[in-house]
Amino acid sequence: MKKNIIDEDKIGNLTVVEVRQGKRKVKLDIVVEEVPLTIFLDGRELVTLLSSPKDLNYLAVGFLYSEGLVKNREEIESLIFEKDKNIIRVKTKKKKRPDSTIKVKKLIPSGCGTAANISGNLFKIGEYKRLNSKLTISSDEIIELMRKLQNRSRLYRLTGGVHSAALASRKDILIFSEDIGRHNAVDKVLGYCILDDIPLDDKITLTSGRVSSEIVLKVARANIPIIISRSAPTMLGAKLASHLGVTLVGFARGRRMNIYTHEERVT
Amino acid sequence: MKKNIIDEDKIGNLTVVEVRQGKRKVKLDIVVEEVPLTIFLDGRELVTLLSSPKDLNYLAVGFLYSEGLVKNREEIESLIFEKDKNIIRVKTKKKKRPDSTIKVKKLIPSGCGTAANISGNLFKIGEYKRLNSKLTISSDEIIELMRKLQNRSRLYRLTGGVHSAALASRKDILIFSEDIGRHNAVDKVLGYCILDDIPLDDKITLTSGRVSSEIVLKVARANIPIIISRSAPTMLGAKLASHLGVTLVGFARGRRMNIYTHEERVT
Repeated sequence: MKKNIIDEDKIGNLTVVEVRQGKRKVKLDIVVEEVPLTIFLDGRELVTLLSSPKDLNYLAVGFLYSEGLVKNREEIESLIFEKDKNIIRVKTKKKKRPDSTIKVKKLIPSGCGTAANISGNLFKIGEYKRLNSKLTISSDEIIELMRKLQNRSRLYRLTGGVHSAALASRKDILIFSEDIGRHNAVDKVLGYCILDDIPLDDKITLTSGRVSSEIVLKVARANIPIIISRSAPTMLGAKLASHLGVTLVGFARGRRMNIYTHEERVT
Repeated sequence: MKKNIIDEDKIGNLTVVEVRQGKRKVKLDIVVEEVPLTIFLDGRELVTLLSSPKDLNYLAVGFLYSEGLVKNREEIESLIFEKDKNIIRVKTKKKKRPDSTIKVKKLIPSGCGTAANISGNLFKIGEYKRLNSKLTISSDEIIELMRKLQNRSRLYRLTGGVHSAALASRKDILIFSEDIGRHNAVDKVLGYCILDDIPLDDKITLTSGRVSSEIVLKVARANIPIIISRSAPTMLGAKLASHLGVTLVGFARGRRMNIYTHEERVT
Protein backbone atom coordinates (compact mmCIF):
# COMPACT_ATOMS: atom_id res chain seq x y z
CA MET A 1 0.00 0.00 0.00
CA LYS A 2 2.96 2.30 0.52
CA LYS A 3 4.31 2.00 -3.00
CA ASN A 4 3.09 4.36 -5.62
CA ILE A 5 2.40 1.94 -8.42
CA ILE A 6 -0.69 1.33 -10.47
CA ASP A 7 -2.04 -2.11 -9.78
CA GLU A 8 -3.08 -3.89 -12.90
CA ASP A 9 -6.17 -5.21 -11.19
CA LYS A 10 -7.46 -1.74 -10.38
CA ILE A 11 -7.89 -0.75 -14.03
CA GLY A 12 -9.08 -2.31 -17.24
CA ASN A 13 -9.24 -1.38 -20.88
CA LEU A 14 -12.42 -0.74 -22.77
CA THR A 15 -13.00 0.04 -26.43
CA VAL A 16 -14.81 3.35 -26.68
CA VAL A 17 -15.92 5.71 -29.43
CA GLU A 18 -14.35 9.09 -28.89
CA VAL A 19 -16.17 12.07 -30.39
CA ARG A 20 -14.19 15.27 -30.87
CA GLN A 21 -15.39 18.18 -32.97
CA GLY A 22 -18.02 15.88 -34.48
CA LYS A 23 -15.41 13.31 -35.60
CA ARG A 24 -15.53 9.73 -34.34
CA LYS A 25 -12.55 7.58 -33.48
CA VAL A 26 -12.44 4.12 -31.91
CA LYS A 27 -9.83 3.98 -29.16
CA LEU A 28 -8.86 2.01 -26.08
CA ASP A 29 -9.76 3.77 -22.83
CA ILE A 30 -8.56 3.04 -19.32
CA VAL A 31 -11.44 2.58 -16.90
CA VAL A 32 -11.39 1.93 -13.14
CA GLU A 33 -12.59 -1.41 -11.89
CA GLU A 34 -15.44 -1.67 -9.39
CA VAL A 35 -16.33 -4.71 -7.29
CA PRO A 36 -18.95 -5.39 -4.65
CA LEU A 37 -17.41 -6.46 -1.33
CA THR A 38 -19.73 -8.14 1.15
CA ILE A 39 -18.69 -8.04 4.79
CA PHE A 40 -19.83 -10.71 7.23
CA LEU A 41 -19.33 -9.92 10.91
CA ASP A 42 -19.43 -12.87 13.31
CA GLY A 43 -21.40 -14.90 10.81
CA ARG A 44 -23.93 -12.23 9.93
CA GLU A 45 -24.09 -10.47 6.58
CA LEU A 46 -23.60 -6.79 7.35
CA VAL A 47 -23.20 -4.73 4.21
CA THR A 48 -22.09 -4.72 0.57
CA LEU A 49 -19.70 -1.94 -0.41
CA LEU A 50 -18.82 -1.02 -3.99
CA SER A 51 -15.11 -0.51 -4.11
CA SER A 52 -11.88 -0.59 -6.08
CA PRO A 53 -10.58 -4.18 -5.96
CA LYS A 54 -7.53 -3.64 -3.78
CA ASP A 55 -6.80 -3.72 -0.06
CA LEU A 56 -10.26 -5.11 0.59
CA ASN A 57 -9.17 -6.44 3.97
CA TYR A 58 -8.19 -2.89 4.97
CA LEU A 59 -11.55 -1.67 3.70
CA ALA A 60 -13.43 -4.23 5.78
CA VAL A 61 -11.50 -3.44 8.97
CA GLY A 62 -11.67 0.32 8.38
CA PHE A 63 -15.40 0.15 7.75
CA LEU A 64 -16.03 -1.89 10.90
CA TYR A 65 -13.88 0.54 12.87
CA SER A 66 -15.70 3.59 11.48
CA GLU A 67 -19.02 2.02 12.40
CA GLY A 68 -17.84 1.38 15.96
CA LEU A 69 -18.12 -2.39 15.53
CA VAL A 70 -14.42 -3.13 16.01
CA LYS A 71 -12.20 -0.99 18.25
CA ASN A 72 -8.72 -2.35 17.63
CA ARG A 73 -6.70 -5.22 16.22
CA GLU A 74 -6.95 -7.26 19.42
CA GLU A 75 -10.71 -7.59 19.00
CA ILE A 76 -10.30 -9.31 15.64
CA GLU A 77 -9.95 -13.08 15.90
CA SER A 78 -9.80 -13.86 12.20
CA LEU A 79 -10.23 -12.25 8.79
CA ILE A 80 -11.00 -14.53 5.87
CA PHE A 81 -11.20 -13.20 2.33
CA GLU A 82 -13.08 -15.40 -0.14
CA LYS A 83 -11.70 -13.84 -3.28
CA ASP A 84 -13.89 -15.73 -5.75
CA LYS A 85 -17.05 -14.42 -4.07
CA ASN A 86 -15.68 -11.06 -2.90
CA ILE A 87 -16.69 -11.86 0.64
CA ILE A 88 -14.75 -10.98 3.79
CA ARG A 89 -15.64 -12.83 6.96
CA VAL A 90 -14.52 -11.05 10.12
CA LYS A 91 -14.71 -12.94 13.38
CA THR A 92 -14.30 -11.01 16.62
CA LYS A 93 -13.52 -12.19 20.12
CA LYS A 94 -16.78 -10.74 21.39
CA LYS A 95 -19.37 -13.13 22.67
CA LYS A 96 -22.16 -13.75 20.23
CA ARG A 97 -24.21 -10.59 20.18
CA PRO A 98 -27.89 -10.37 19.50
CA ASP A 99 -28.71 -9.29 15.94
CA SER A 100 -30.13 -6.01 17.09
CA THR A 101 -26.82 -4.76 18.49
CA ILE A 102 -25.13 -4.89 15.10
CA LYS A 103 -26.10 -1.74 13.25
CA VAL A 104 -24.51 -0.03 10.32
CA LYS A 105 -25.98 3.36 11.05
CA LYS A 106 -24.42 6.06 13.17
CA LEU A 107 -27.03 8.70 12.69
CA ILE A 108 -30.16 8.70 14.71
CA PRO A 109 -32.87 11.15 13.84
CA SER A 110 -34.51 11.26 17.23
CA GLY A 111 -33.00 11.78 20.64
CA CYS A 112 -32.02 8.70 22.57
CA GLY A 113 -28.89 8.00 24.51
CA THR A 114 -26.20 10.67 24.46
CA ALA A 115 -27.10 12.88 21.56
CA ALA A 116 -26.11 16.38 20.56
CA ASN A 117 -28.19 18.81 18.58
CA ILE A 118 -26.01 19.89 15.70
CA SER A 119 -27.29 21.85 12.77
CA GLY A 120 -30.84 21.12 13.87
CA ASN A 121 -30.27 17.37 13.86
CA LEU A 122 -29.72 15.03 16.72
CA PHE A 123 -26.54 13.05 16.46
CA LYS A 124 -25.51 10.22 18.67
CA ILE A 125 -22.02 11.48 19.29
CA GLY A 126 -21.66 10.34 22.88
CA GLU A 127 -19.22 7.71 21.71
CA TYR A 128 -17.01 10.38 20.12
CA LYS A 129 -14.76 12.34 22.39
CA ARG A 130 -13.61 15.88 21.72
CA LEU A 131 -10.04 15.96 20.45
CA ASN A 132 -7.57 18.08 22.41
CA SER A 133 -4.40 17.30 20.46
CA LYS A 134 -1.64 19.94 20.57
CA LEU A 135 -0.50 18.96 17.08
CA THR A 136 0.13 21.93 14.82
CA ILE A 137 0.98 22.28 11.15
CA SER A 138 2.08 25.25 9.07
CA SER A 139 0.26 26.34 5.94
CA ASP A 140 3.45 25.63 3.96
CA GLU A 141 3.46 22.06 5.26
CA ILE A 142 -0.19 21.70 4.22
CA ILE A 143 0.62 22.93 0.72
CA GLU A 144 3.50 20.47 0.45
CA LEU A 145 1.44 17.49 1.72
CA MET A 146 -1.38 18.19 -0.73
CA ARG A 147 1.14 18.50 -3.56
CA LYS A 148 2.43 15.04 -2.62
CA LEU A 149 -1.11 13.65 -2.45
CA GLN A 150 -1.76 14.82 -5.99
CA ASN A 151 1.54 13.47 -7.27
CA ARG A 152 0.69 10.04 -5.94
CA SER A 153 -2.81 9.99 -7.41
CA ARG A 154 -1.70 8.39 -10.64
CA LEU A 155 -4.90 6.38 -10.98
CA TYR A 156 -6.92 9.59 -10.84
CA ARG A 157 -4.81 11.18 -13.54
CA LEU A 158 -5.24 8.07 -15.72
CA THR A 159 -8.95 7.55 -15.22
CA GLY A 160 -10.55 10.54 -13.49
CA GLY A 161 -12.58 7.96 -11.63
CA VAL A 162 -11.21 7.70 -8.09
CA HIS A 163 -10.66 9.53 -4.83
CA SER A 164 -7.46 9.47 -2.85
CA ALA A 165 -6.89 9.54 0.89
CA ALA A 166 -3.76 9.41 3.03
CA LEU A 167 -2.44 9.37 6.54
CA ALA A 168 0.42 11.81 6.95
CA SER A 169 2.82 13.23 9.48
CA ARG A 170 3.57 16.95 9.20
CA LYS A 171 6.39 16.09 6.85
CA ASP A 172 5.27 13.22 4.66
CA ILE A 173 2.59 10.82 3.49
CA LEU A 174 2.74 7.55 5.42
CA ILE A 175 -0.15 5.56 3.99
CA PHE A 176 -1.88 6.23 0.69
CA SER A 177 -5.05 4.81 -0.82
CA GLU A 178 -7.18 5.32 -3.91
CA ASP A 179 -10.73 4.08 -4.31
CA ILE A 180 -13.81 4.77 -6.41
CA GLY A 181 -15.53 5.85 -3.18
CA ARG A 182 -14.29 8.71 -1.00
CA HIS A 183 -15.54 6.95 2.14
CA ASN A 184 -13.78 3.75 1.09
CA ALA A 185 -10.47 5.52 0.48
CA VAL A 186 -10.51 6.87 4.06
CA ASP A 187 -11.65 3.52 5.48
CA LYS A 188 -8.81 1.68 3.70
CA VAL A 189 -6.28 4.03 5.29
CA LEU A 190 -7.87 3.57 8.73
CA GLY A 191 -8.06 -0.21 8.30
CA TYR A 192 -4.35 -0.33 7.51
CA CYS A 193 -3.62 1.70 10.65
CA ILE A 194 -5.78 -0.52 12.86
CA LEU A 195 -4.16 -3.72 11.59
CA ASP A 196 -0.69 -2.18 11.91
CA ASP A 197 -1.36 -0.54 15.32
CA ILE A 198 -0.27 2.86 14.06
CA PRO A 199 -0.85 5.70 16.58
CA LEU A 200 -3.21 8.25 15.05
CA ASP A 201 -3.51 11.14 17.48
CA ASP A 202 -0.42 12.88 16.08
CA LYS A 203 -1.32 12.34 12.43
CA ILE A 204 -3.16 14.15 9.66
CA THR A 205 -5.75 12.87 7.18
CA LEU A 206 -5.57 14.08 3.58
CA THR A 207 -8.38 13.56 1.10
CA SER A 208 -9.27 14.59 -2.43
CA GLY A 209 -12.98 14.29 -1.63
CA ARG A 210 -15.64 16.42 -0.06
CA VAL A 211 -15.78 16.46 3.72
CA SER A 212 -19.31 15.50 4.75
CA SER A 213 -20.49 14.49 8.22
CA GLU A 214 -19.49 10.85 7.77
CA ILE A 215 -15.90 11.70 6.84
CA VAL A 216 -15.54 13.95 9.91
CA LEU A 217 -16.97 11.23 12.16
CA LYS A 218 -14.48 8.67 10.79
CA VAL A 219 -11.55 10.97 11.49
CA ALA A 220 -12.82 12.03 14.92
CA ARG A 221 -13.37 8.45 16.02
CA ALA A 222 -9.79 7.64 15.03
CA ASN A 223 -8.54 10.60 17.12
CA ILE A 224 -6.93 12.23 14.09
CA PRO A 225 -6.97 15.95 14.92
CA ILE A 226 -6.54 17.45 11.42
CA ILE A 227 -8.25 16.75 8.09
CA ILE A 228 -7.22 18.51 4.89
CA SER A 229 -9.22 18.30 1.67
CA ARG A 230 -8.86 19.56 -1.89
CA SER A 231 -12.66 19.88 -1.96
CA ALA A 232 -15.56 21.49 -0.13
CA PRO A 233 -16.95 20.60 3.28
CA THR A 234 -20.66 20.41 4.02
CA MET A 235 -22.17 22.55 6.75
CA LEU A 236 -22.86 19.49 8.88
CA GLY A 237 -19.28 18.30 8.36
CA ALA A 238 -17.93 21.68 9.47
CA LYS A 239 -20.25 21.85 12.50
CA LEU A 240 -19.32 18.34 13.62
CA ALA A 241 -15.60 19.16 13.18
CA SER A 242 -16.04 22.28 15.29
CA HIS A 243 -17.95 20.36 17.97
CA LEU A 244 -15.49 17.45 18.08
CA GLY A 245 -12.29 19.49 18.09
CA VAL A 246 -11.16 18.55 14.57
CA THR A 247 -9.27 21.07 12.42
CA LEU A 248 -10.92 21.10 9.00
CA VAL A 249 -9.07 22.62 6.05
CA GLY A 250 -10.86 22.67 2.69
CA PHE A 251 -10.11 23.76 -0.88
CA ALA A 252 -6.39 23.18 -0.25
CA ARG A 253 -5.20 23.73 -3.83
CA GLY A 254 -1.96 25.23 -5.04
CA ARG A 255 -0.96 27.87 -2.48
CA ARG A 256 -4.40 28.54 -1.05
CA MET A 257 -6.80 26.93 1.44
CA ASN A 258 -9.75 27.70 3.71
CA ILE A 259 -9.54 26.82 7.40
CA TYR A 260 -13.09 26.05 8.50
CA THR A 261 -12.61 24.95 12.11
CA HIS A 262 -10.01 25.01 14.90
CA GLU A 263 -7.57 27.25 13.11
CA GLU A 264 -5.37 27.25 16.24
CA ARG A 265 -3.63 24.14 14.88
CA VAL A 266 -2.52 25.88 11.67
CA THR A 267 0.51 28.05 12.35
CA MET B 1 -37.80 21.75 -8.88
CA LYS B 2 -38.04 23.15 -12.38
CA LYS B 3 -36.95 26.64 -11.51
CA ASN B 4 -33.31 27.48 -11.53
CA ILE B 5 -33.04 29.35 -8.26
CA ILE B 6 -30.81 28.83 -5.28
CA ASP B 7 -32.87 27.83 -2.29
CA GLU B 8 -31.79 29.63 0.81
CA ASP B 9 -32.18 26.45 2.84
CA LYS B 10 -29.67 24.55 0.69
CA ILE B 11 -26.75 26.79 1.66
CA GLY B 12 -25.45 28.51 4.75
CA ASN B 13 -22.70 30.95 5.60
CA LEU B 14 -19.70 30.10 7.65
CA THR B 15 -16.84 32.27 8.88
CA VAL B 16 -13.59 30.81 7.57
CA VAL B 17 -9.94 31.77 7.59
CA GLU B 18 -8.70 32.01 4.03
CA VAL B 19 -4.98 31.50 3.49
CA ARG B 20 -3.47 32.80 0.23
CA GLN B 21 0.23 33.15 -0.38
CA GLY B 22 0.76 32.75 3.36
CA LYS B 23 -1.59 35.66 4.22
CA ARG B 24 -4.66 35.11 6.40
CA LYS B 25 -8.02 36.76 5.94
CA VAL B 26 -11.28 36.11 7.77
CA LYS B 27 -14.18 35.90 5.34
CA LEU B 28 -17.70 34.57 5.00
CA ASP B 29 -17.88 31.38 2.94
CA ILE B 30 -20.92 29.73 1.38
CA VAL B 31 -21.21 26.07 2.38
CA VAL B 32 -23.78 23.46 1.31
CA GLU B 33 -26.17 22.16 3.93
CA GLU B 34 -26.37 18.44 4.72
CA VAL B 35 -29.17 16.68 6.60
CA PRO B 36 -29.85 13.08 7.50
CA LEU B 37 -33.17 11.84 6.09
CA THR B 38 -34.59 8.68 7.63
CA ILE B 39 -37.05 6.72 5.53
CA PHE B 40 -39.67 4.51 7.14
CA LEU B 41 -41.44 2.07 4.82
CA ASP B 42 -44.71 0.62 6.07
CA GLY B 43 -43.74 1.35 9.66
CA ARG B 44 -40.25 -0.05 9.48
CA GLU B 45 -37.08 2.07 9.61
CA LEU B 46 -35.28 1.39 6.36
CA VAL B 47 -32.31 3.69 5.88
CA THR B 48 -30.81 7.09 6.70
CA LEU B 49 -29.53 9.07 3.73
CA LEU B 50 -27.33 12.15 4.00
CA SER B 51 -28.69 14.70 1.60
CA SER B 52 -29.21 18.31 0.63
CA PRO B 53 -32.32 19.53 2.46
CA LYS B 54 -34.65 19.95 -0.50
CA ASP B 55 -37.12 17.76 -2.35
CA LEU B 56 -36.75 15.10 0.33
CA ASN B 57 -40.08 13.55 -0.65
CA TYR B 58 -38.71 13.05 -4.17
CA LEU B 59 -35.56 11.55 -2.68
CA ALA B 60 -37.55 9.08 -0.58
CA VAL B 61 -39.72 7.97 -3.50
CA GLY B 62 -36.78 7.81 -5.91
CA PHE B 63 -34.73 5.78 -3.45
CA LEU B 64 -37.58 3.32 -2.85
CA TYR B 65 -38.07 3.05 -6.61
CA SER B 66 -34.36 2.45 -7.25
CA GLU B 67 -34.35 -0.26 -4.61
CA GLY B 68 -37.33 -1.97 -6.22
CA LEU B 69 -39.51 -1.39 -3.15
CA VAL B 70 -42.04 0.84 -4.89
CA LYS B 71 -42.92 0.44 -8.57
CA ASN B 72 -45.17 3.42 -9.30
CA ARG B 73 -47.29 6.15 -7.78
CA GLU B 74 -50.34 3.89 -7.44
CA GLU B 75 -48.52 1.70 -4.93
CA ILE B 76 -48.01 4.63 -2.55
CA GLU B 77 -50.86 5.14 -0.12
CA SER B 78 -49.39 8.03 1.84
CA LEU B 79 -46.21 10.03 2.26
CA ILE B 80 -45.73 11.91 5.51
CA PHE B 81 -42.75 14.20 6.06
CA GLU B 82 -41.95 14.98 9.71
CA LYS B 83 -39.81 18.00 9.04
CA ASP B 84 -38.64 18.55 12.64
CA LYS B 85 -37.19 15.04 12.78
CA ASN B 86 -36.23 14.70 9.09
CA ILE B 87 -38.28 11.54 8.83
CA ILE B 88 -40.37 10.46 5.86
CA ARG B 89 -42.97 7.78 6.44
CA VAL B 90 -44.07 6.02 3.27
CA LYS B 91 -47.08 3.76 3.44
CA THR B 92 -47.78 1.43 0.54
CA LYS B 93 -50.91 -0.44 -0.44
CA LYS B 94 -49.06 -3.74 -0.19
CA LYS B 95 -50.16 -6.19 2.45
CA LYS B 96 -47.87 -6.25 5.45
CA ARG B 97 -44.69 -7.95 4.31
CA PRO B 98 -42.38 -9.97 6.45
CA ASP B 99 -39.29 -8.06 7.57
CA SER B 100 -37.02 -10.24 5.55
CA THR B 101 -38.55 -9.16 2.23
CA ILE B 102 -37.56 -5.52 2.75
CA LYS B 103 -33.95 -5.20 1.74
CA VAL B 104 -31.93 -2.21 0.77
CA LYS B 105 -29.34 -4.10 -1.18
CA LYS B 106 -29.45 -4.97 -4.84
CA LEU B 107 -26.15 -6.71 -5.10
CA ILE B 108 -25.75 -10.29 -4.16
CA PRO B 109 -22.31 -11.76 -4.15
CA SER B 110 -23.29 -15.35 -4.65
CA GLY B 111 -25.59 -16.90 -7.18
CA CYS B 112 -29.21 -17.30 -6.22
CA GLY B 113 -32.28 -16.48 -8.20
CA THR B 114 -31.75 -14.94 -11.60
CA ALA B 115 -28.20 -13.74 -11.56
CA ALA B 116 -25.77 -12.77 -14.28
CA ASN B 117 -22.04 -13.03 -14.11
CA ILE B 118 -20.73 -9.60 -15.00
CA SER B 119 -17.15 -8.58 -14.57
CA GLY B 120 -16.55 -11.68 -12.50
CA ASN B 121 -19.34 -10.83 -10.07
CA LEU B 122 -22.80 -12.24 -9.81
CA PHE B 123 -25.53 -9.66 -10.03
CA LYS B 124 -29.17 -10.24 -9.42
CA ILE B 125 -30.36 -8.48 -12.52
CA GLY B 126 -33.30 -10.71 -13.34
CA GLU B 127 -35.60 -7.89 -12.33
CA TYR B 128 -33.97 -5.57 -14.88
CA LYS B 129 -35.02 -5.94 -18.47
CA ARG B 130 -32.80 -5.11 -21.41
CA LEU B 131 -33.76 -1.78 -22.99
CA ASN B 132 -34.60 -1.79 -26.68
CA SER B 133 -35.57 1.85 -27.11
CA LYS B 134 -35.15 3.30 -30.61
CA LEU B 135 -34.40 6.76 -29.16
CA THR B 136 -31.44 8.45 -30.78
CA ILE B 137 -29.55 11.66 -30.06
CA SER B 138 -26.91 13.54 -32.00
CA SER B 139 -23.54 14.44 -30.54
CA ASP B 140 -24.44 18.12 -31.01
CA GLU B 141 -27.58 17.64 -28.94
CA ILE B 142 -25.50 15.97 -26.23
CA ILE B 143 -23.09 18.91 -26.17
CA GLU B 144 -25.99 21.35 -25.90
CA LEU B 145 -27.73 19.41 -23.09
CA MET B 146 -24.53 19.20 -21.04
CA ARG B 147 -23.94 22.91 -21.55
CA LYS B 148 -27.43 23.53 -20.13
CA LEU B 149 -26.77 21.19 -17.20
CA GLN B 150 -23.68 23.18 -16.30
CA ASN B 151 -25.46 26.50 -16.63
CA ARG B 152 -28.13 25.40 -14.19
CA SER B 153 -25.64 24.10 -11.62
CA ARG B 154 -25.45 27.40 -9.78
CA LEU B 155 -25.09 25.73 -6.39
CA TYR B 156 -22.03 23.86 -7.65
CA ARG B 157 -20.44 27.04 -8.92
CA LEU B 158 -21.12 28.71 -5.56
CA THR B 159 -19.98 25.91 -3.29
CA GLY B 160 -18.16 23.21 -5.26
CA GLY B 161 -19.97 20.78 -2.99
CA VAL B 162 -22.78 19.20 -4.98
CA HIS B 163 -23.64 16.98 -7.91
CA SER B 164 -26.33 17.71 -10.45
CA ALA B 165 -28.65 15.37 -12.31
CA ALA B 166 -31.42 15.93 -14.81
CA LEU B 167 -34.04 14.27 -16.92
CA ALA B 168 -34.00 15.60 -20.46
CA SER B 169 -35.61 15.22 -23.84
CA ARG B 170 -33.31 15.49 -26.87
CA LYS B 171 -33.93 19.22 -26.89
CA ASP B 172 -34.11 20.39 -23.30
CA ILE B 173 -33.78 19.72 -19.59
CA LEU B 174 -37.15 18.83 -18.05
CA ILE B 175 -36.29 18.15 -14.41
CA PHE B 176 -33.17 19.30 -12.62
CA SER B 177 -31.77 18.42 -9.21
CA GLU B 178 -28.67 19.17 -7.16
CA ASP B 179 -27.59 17.21 -4.11
CA ILE B 180 -24.47 16.59 -2.05
CA GLY B 181 -24.73 12.93 -3.16
CA ARG B 182 -24.60 11.86 -6.80
CA HIS B 183 -26.95 8.94 -6.08
CA ASN B 184 -29.38 11.27 -4.32
CA ALA B 185 -29.42 13.74 -7.22
CA VAL B 186 -30.49 10.94 -9.59
CA ASP B 187 -33.01 9.55 -7.10
CA LYS B 188 -34.62 12.98 -6.64
CA VAL B 189 -35.14 13.25 -10.39
CA LEU B 190 -36.59 9.74 -10.54
CA GLY B 191 -38.82 10.38 -7.50
CA TYR B 192 -40.24 13.48 -9.18
CA CYS B 193 -40.98 11.43 -12.33
CA ILE B 194 -42.68 8.64 -10.39
CA LEU B 195 -44.92 11.06 -8.46
CA ASP B 196 -45.72 12.97 -11.65
CA ASP B 197 -46.21 9.84 -13.81
CA ILE B 198 -43.71 11.07 -16.40
CA PRO B 199 -42.92 8.50 -19.13
CA LEU B 200 -39.21 7.72 -19.05
CA ASP B 201 -38.46 5.39 -21.94
CA ASP B 202 -38.00 8.27 -24.40
CA LYS B 203 -35.89 10.39 -22.06
CA ILE B 204 -32.22 10.94 -21.23
CA THR B 205 -30.46 11.16 -17.87
CA LEU B 206 -27.72 13.74 -17.41
CA THR B 207 -25.33 13.71 -14.48
CA SER B 208 -22.24 15.55 -13.33
CA GLY B 209 -21.11 12.51 -11.35
CA ARG B 210 -19.28 9.29 -12.03
CA VAL B 211 -21.30 6.43 -13.49
CA SER B 212 -20.84 3.43 -11.21
CA SER B 213 -22.90 0.25 -11.20
CA GLU B 214 -25.57 1.69 -8.92
CA ILE B 215 -26.21 4.68 -11.18
CA VAL B 216 -26.57 2.42 -14.24
CA LEU B 217 -28.99 0.15 -12.37
CA LYS B 218 -31.14 3.14 -11.34
CA VAL B 219 -31.38 4.34 -14.94
CA ALA B 220 -31.97 0.85 -16.36
CA ARG B 221 -34.74 0.13 -13.89
CA ALA B 222 -36.46 3.35 -14.93
CA ASN B 223 -36.21 2.32 -18.61
CA ILE B 224 -34.20 5.42 -19.49
CA PRO B 225 -32.13 4.33 -22.50
CA ILE B 226 -29.37 6.97 -22.44
CA ILE B 227 -27.16 8.33 -19.65
CA ILE B 228 -24.66 11.12 -20.24
CA SER B 229 -22.05 12.14 -17.68
CA ARG B 230 -19.37 14.82 -17.39
CA SER B 231 -17.30 12.27 -15.46
CA ALA B 232 -15.84 8.78 -15.73
CA PRO B 233 -17.70 5.47 -15.66
CA THR B 234 -16.47 2.46 -13.73
CA MET B 235 -15.81 -0.82 -15.52
CA LEU B 236 -18.75 -2.45 -13.76
CA GLY B 237 -20.97 0.50 -14.69
CA ALA B 238 -19.96 0.16 -18.35
CA LYS B 239 -20.44 -3.62 -18.38
CA LEU B 240 -23.87 -3.37 -16.80
CA ALA B 241 -24.85 -0.65 -19.29
CA SER B 242 -23.71 -2.86 -22.15
CA HIS B 243 -25.60 -5.85 -20.76
CA LEU B 244 -28.80 -3.92 -20.06
CA GLY B 245 -28.95 -2.01 -23.35
CA VAL B 246 -28.17 1.42 -21.89
CA THR B 247 -26.18 3.95 -23.94
CA LEU B 248 -23.44 5.33 -21.68
CA VAL B 249 -21.64 8.52 -22.65
CA GLY B 250 -18.86 9.74 -20.36
CA PHE B 251 -16.51 12.72 -20.14
CA ALA B 252 -19.02 14.86 -22.05
CA ARG B 253 -17.23 18.19 -21.69
CA GLY B 254 -17.09 21.07 -24.11
CA ARG B 255 -17.22 19.59 -27.61
CA ARG B 256 -15.92 16.12 -26.74
CA MET B 257 -17.25 12.89 -25.22
CA ASN B 258 -16.58 9.16 -25.03
CA ILE B 259 -19.34 6.72 -25.99
CA TYR B 260 -18.79 3.61 -23.85
CA THR B 261 -21.78 1.45 -24.78
CA HIS B 262 -24.55 1.16 -27.38
CA GLU B 263 -23.20 3.84 -29.67
CA GLU B 264 -26.00 3.04 -32.13
CA ARG B 265 -28.19 5.59 -30.32
CA VAL B 266 -25.73 8.44 -30.92
CA THR B 267 -26.11 9.76 -34.47
